[in-house]
Amino acid sequence: MRAVVMQSGDLSLAEFPIPQPGPREVLVKTLACGICGSDLHCAAHGRQLLSSAKEVAGIDLFGFDDPVIMGHEICAEVLEYGPNCRKTLSPGTRAVSAPFLLRPEPVSLVFGTPQTPGGYAEYMLLSEDMLIPVPQHLPSDLATLAEPLAVALHAVNRGKLGANDVPIVIGCGPIGLAVIAVLKMRGIGPIVAADFSPSRRRMAKMIGADVVVDPRETSPYDSWRAVAAATDLSQFGRQTQMFPGHAFRPSVVFECVGIPGIIQQILAGAAPCSKIVVAGLCMELDKFYPSFAIIKEVDIVFCIAFAMDEYAEAFDHIASGKLDAGALITSHVGLEGVPEAFARLKDPERDAKIVVIP
Amino acid sequence: MRAVVMQSGDLSLAEFPIPQPGPREVLVKTLACGICGSDLHCAAHGRQLLSSAKEVAGIDLFGFDDPVIMGHEICAEVLEYGPNCRKTLSPGTRAVSAPFLLRPEPVSLVFGTPQTPGGYAEYMLLSEDMLIPVPQHLPSDLATLAEPLAVALHAVNRGKLGANDVPIVIGCGPIGLAVIAVLKMRGIGPIVAADFSPSRRRMAKMIGADVVVDPRETSPYDSWRAVAAATDLSQFGRQTQMFPGHAFRPSVVFECVGIPGIIQQILAGAAPCSKIVVAGLCMELDKFYPSFAIIKEVDIVFCIAFAMDEYAEAFDHIASGKLDAGALITSHVGLEGVPEAFARLKDPERDAKIVVIP
Repeated sequence: MRAVVMQSGDLSLAEFPIPQPGPREVLVKTLACGICGSDLHCAAHGRQLLSSAKEVAGIDLFGFDDPVIMGHEICAEVLEYGPNCRKTLSPGTRAVSAPFLLRPEPVSLVFGTPQTPGGYAEYMLLSEDMLIPVPQHLPSDLATLAEPLAVALHAVNRGKLGANDVPIVIGCGPIGLAVIAVLKMRGIGPIVAADFSPSRRRMAKMIGADVVVDPRETSPYDSWRAVAAATDLSQFGRQTQMFPGHAFRPSVVFECVGIPGIIQQILAGAAPCSKIVVAGLCMELDKFYPSFAIIKEVDIVFCIAFAMDEYAEAFDHIASGKLDAGALITSHVGLEGVPEAFARLKDPERDAKIVVIP
Repeated sequence: MRAVVMQSGDLSLAEFPIPQPGPREVLVKTLACGICGSDLHCAAHGRQLLSSAKEVAGIDLFGFDDPVIMGHEICAEVLEYGPNCRKTLSPGTRAVSAPFLLRPEPVSLVFGTPQTPGGYAEYMLLSEDMLIPVPQHLPSDLATLAEPLAVALHAVNRGKLGANDVPIVIGCGPIGLAVIAVLKMRGIGPIVAADFSPSRRRMAKMIGADVVVDPRETSPYDSWRAVAAATDLSQFGRQTQMFPGHAFRPSVVFECVGIPGIIQQILAGAAPCSKIVVAGLCMELDKFYPSFAIIKEVDIVFCIAFAMDEYAEAFDHIASGKLDAGALITSHVGLEGVPEAFARLKDPERDAKIVVIP
């Protein structure tokens, strides 16, 4: 089978044997696979990611010089079951799955191997118990959005927003846009969003942000203050001792940029008693003044990935049409187009989400 | 009256007129006033504190060259009421108060002026509505602990600990010790604590910590793992996607040191799904790797001061004997002893809390 392989930081198209499903696993044909920002990051900064994962979590994600087949936002077609399967879904059924194989030691497909490839390959293995069938009306590319929307749903869940919280989304890349879509679906708002890119700002508006600003021209925190001031604080404001006599409307800032300096920028701009949900993945050393967070009594909540029920929930909402994030998908490419798509995705004006159709 | 005044970073004893109580205020005689770490910090790093408060919160705490009379952990005796008072407490009654005057624009006594001095003065003004009478059996020096214990109570409240959470207290200065006392009172434990100083470790044990370590010899996080492993995780563990198949007991780390580098140290050592409550007051630039917090899905909760009901609650627990933190007080000095006490408090082997008896 053909697959896009990453090896020593380079991407190329190569031939591999079709993988063999183990017990309770199923061989599937990859129908669609979204390209995730973390894939780009890994291709560009693989060595750094590896040493960081090793140091932080004691995890060997992959060998830098080993062949890695990425792609974890997947929709596939059931082909052939391995041993000990219940075979509930008949061959030909389309299905999605969170990118994990339920083996005694769970296997992540985020950094797949030729034996257990990710979605940048014509065929994959999935665990039968993880499969969620895709209804007839839902196109395969939309179905792949279950994964990034589960990430956003998890971030919003970690933010534990109350009915009166005003969210601010800093950065409208795919994760920021997905967070906006989930907030909109949940009826939380008004939603303030900020991005330097005009096309990203257009998408933020389309997906459901109420106030969208270019941070070079308008402070998103000032916009937040204008929106938040429209309501009576005395009902639900939290007080902090450093600002006696003032109550603050709870605000939740979603950090969806993931570069050094952003957290301090948010600490400087955000209102007292804010919560910051860090959904951006900054792998570098960062600097901040704890005093800004202390005097404002800020909470910072860091998140990554999602729980399985969040994945299932995100997919249900996509299938029912409740979660409308199709606008995220800006292009489709074949396997041969993946290396160029990785390059194109560096320009925020051109694309948000590119889906690979192997 | 005599008072210890800070001016341009220097402390000295000086004479001032006795202040005049305004409407709904009362002139009191200061019976006891604890020396707080933030007073030391302010005497040593006043300029930095001022510029930081100005930048972060838009607050002018005080003028660096103006006379400042600090002291905000107070117990006093009612002397004479100003206009429009209800005079519920008769002159001679001992009372405590949170260090604020309820004027139209609230006045903090943390950085008092000669007109509204803090507790390093023979006389002070307090708001009648803020007074809490001190019962006969409670010594004045113990009553002053309401303030630091309210800070600790607020930090523990901000930590929102569940019944199964295992707390770790990093740093056993007065705030760390006060946090241990509050955790003990609430029945939350086992409590793991760490400090470099042998005498601070002895105090931590005396005040209620169950496992106390010298971090040069034993990792507090390893101690935490040993303690936390004794229970069945499957009941209450939280899972994070980066560690599939593992559940983590919620742990809450109290950062009570307040120097750069501590937060990253905690991020590196703490278990996944930990919450860090930052009660230390670090005014300098700090560095950290967001990736450590992201991969472990950590929450960081920053706190300062307390709400008025937390002050009243802390005082009630001290008065009832439920909150036993008298061991915190290691010495008493007169007003003339304050400058030397400030110097002595830099050595953790000598003192924890010194109370001034004006």
